[in-house]
Amino acid sequence: MTDHFDVLAIGNAIVDVLASADDDFLTSQAIEKGCMRLISAEEATALYAAMPPGREISGGSAANTTAGIAALGGRAAFIGRVSDDQLGRVFAHDIRASGVDYRTPAASGGRPTGQCLIIVTPDAQRTMNTYLGSCQELDEMDVDEALVKAAAITYFEGYLWDPPAPIRAIRKASAIARAAGRKVAMTLSDVFCVEGHRADFLHLLESGQVDLLFANENEAKSLFRTDDVAVAVDGLAALAPLAVVTRSGKGAVVVSGSERAAVPVTPAARVLDTTGAGDLFAAGFLTGYTQGRMLKDCAIMGTIAAAEVIEHYGARPEADLVARVQARLG
Amino acid sequence: MTDHFDVLAIGNAIVDVLASADDDFLTSQAIEKGCMRLISAEEATALYAAMPPGREISGGSAANTTAGIAALGGRAAFIGRVSDDQLGRVFAHDIRASGVDYRTPAASGGRPTGQCLIIVTPDAQRTMNTYLGSCQELDEMDVDEALVKAAAITYFEGYLWDPPAPIRAIRKASAIARAAGRKVAMTLSDVFCVEGHRADFLHLLESGQVDLLFANENEAKSLFRTDDVAVAVDGLAALAPLAVVTRSGKGAVVVSGSERAAVPVTPAARVLDTTGAGDLFAAGFLTGYTQGRMLKDCAIMGTIAAAEVIEHYGARPEADLVARVQARLG
Repeated sequence: MTDHFDVLAIGNAIVDVLASADDDFLTSQAIEKGCMRLISAEEATALYAAMPPGREISGGSAANTTAGIAALGGRAAFIGRVSDDQLGRVFAHDIRASGVDYRTPAASGGRPTGQCLIIVTPDAQRTMNTYLGSCQELDEMDVDEALVKAAAITYFEGYLWDPPAPIRAIRKASAIARAAGRKVAMTLSDVFCVEGHRADFLHLLESGQVDLLFANENEAKSLFRTDDVAVAVDGLAALAPLAVVTRSGKGAVVVSGSERAAVPVTPAARVLDTTGAGDLFAAGFLTGYTQGRMLKDCAIMGTIAAAEVIEHYGARPEADLVARVQARLG
Repeated sequence: MTDHFDVLAIGNAIVDVLASADDDFLTSQAIEKGCMRLISAEEATALYAAMPPGREISGGSAANTTAGIAALGGRAAFIGRVSDDQLGRVFAHDIRASGVDYRTPAASGGRPTGQCLIIVTPDAQRTMNTYLGSCQELDEMDVDEALVKAAAITYFEGYLWDPPAPIRAIRKASAIARAAGRKVAMTLSDVFCVEGHRADFLHLLESGQVDLLFANENEAKSLFRTDDVAVAVDGLAALAPLAVVTRSGKGAVVVSGSERAAVPVTPAARVLDTTGAGDLFAAGFLTGYTQGRMLKDCAIMGTIAAAEVIEHYGARPEADLVARVQARLG
């Protein structure tokens, strides 16, 4: 069977609109810097009208991760809902042209394709304002049982935890994967998601439904309501067989039982736009993991992929990631 | 009256789709490198399906020029037709957010907003494949007499010379501008345009309807069917009070009667994507001209604006052009 995948990802199908602006713009719009927030269609229209000129580049956290996996030589598939409109065609084109298997049918007649209005400040920080649009219409019917069984890892994003239908889609995929002896991976996505769905996320972990968890330091601390990263790391170790905590400029820590392996960041040639750094870290780690590499090398692959994506605008890789990994790890 | 403009530009309202690919891709698609060609909706669909992932960034030659003028501190307006669709809203947002006055109503129910599928090769050359879409629906009714009268210069692009309605729009604008004692400027746009409309372009020049002509070396040579750039330059001198010939890496020559002033290029920090270099040269020159600068300094401003736009993807300025001009010319 040729349809074997290293990773099947389920996430929001989003086109990013990236604009450069200074901190004063965020203040004038009463937007907290560095976060992700959900906005309504009306809020999106008003914010877009106030924004500087943009660049439209396909995004979506888990979708970016699959584009990264494909760029690293892995086999990836994606499930997520666009609308049958121009931006939906942009999303579908770009993810397929990245080498990712993408077959979710576009919705018609409903909300437009989801967009993330991203303000990139001079310090390269990204502040995200997401209008989910048709992403909310993803449902169980879009989860193809054969596709889940064909993937070594099914990976989903915490960002999906808002409307009920996508959550049902994840539960279905997760159940199929576990029944088939496949691994399930998850990212907590954002402090905003953890704060809104802490009980759900903890239940998923406590009931052993997640084999591999990705979180950044702030998300991990929020999950356990602690300011102490060591407490958060120990908390994750107790709830997931394998967890990876990313720490921005301080690198990442791999957590497995009582073992801890820390890796530093891979320096970027320049830091222009940090959008997608976490998504590409997950891409590197997951690709290394499905290649059977040592956990520390998986994390190094994550830092290599993250370093590339922050060197340019947009959350998907542009440079030759395979060459960068080979130069570092062979 | 506050509605005074330095430049009113009339052109195709286009959203660019920029993708990086090697020369083999162009060969496989039987596309000649470095040129612009018009493609049908069907050809656009087929080429897009074959293209690598893209970045959508507002473009259009004369529209890019107005964005450059605004970035340089000038007052610019633009006339060009989008459709009432997502990419039309992207175009309208971006040009307004650049500080350009843009009021042309969007077409509804007809062709979609025009797109230019641009392949950027590793040598930073751009090869353009344009689906005009709703641009073809621009007509005389879109030319507001008061707006033309309010602009010191009315500037239009040779790219408009394809369907009949936009040509009528230019003729109307040109007649209003001349009757009001305003200047008319034009770019030959592309060898493709010159070859298709040589007689029309020569007639415009010979009848004294163009005060300021922009051409690159190849367009000028094509206009006079010569391989000798000196012959072409002398030909322009005989037909236009003022002409500027851009010569890629060799800089530009300002041509006025028997006078010739050559300026070298301004070095770019890096050369990533040459899309928009000619458009931004025109922006720099026109801004300097409306500021009353010496012609040589106008050309230097052109090279400064062109150098910035080739340092990044996309044909509109991202850096502080006013600061760059002040650093060089005061």
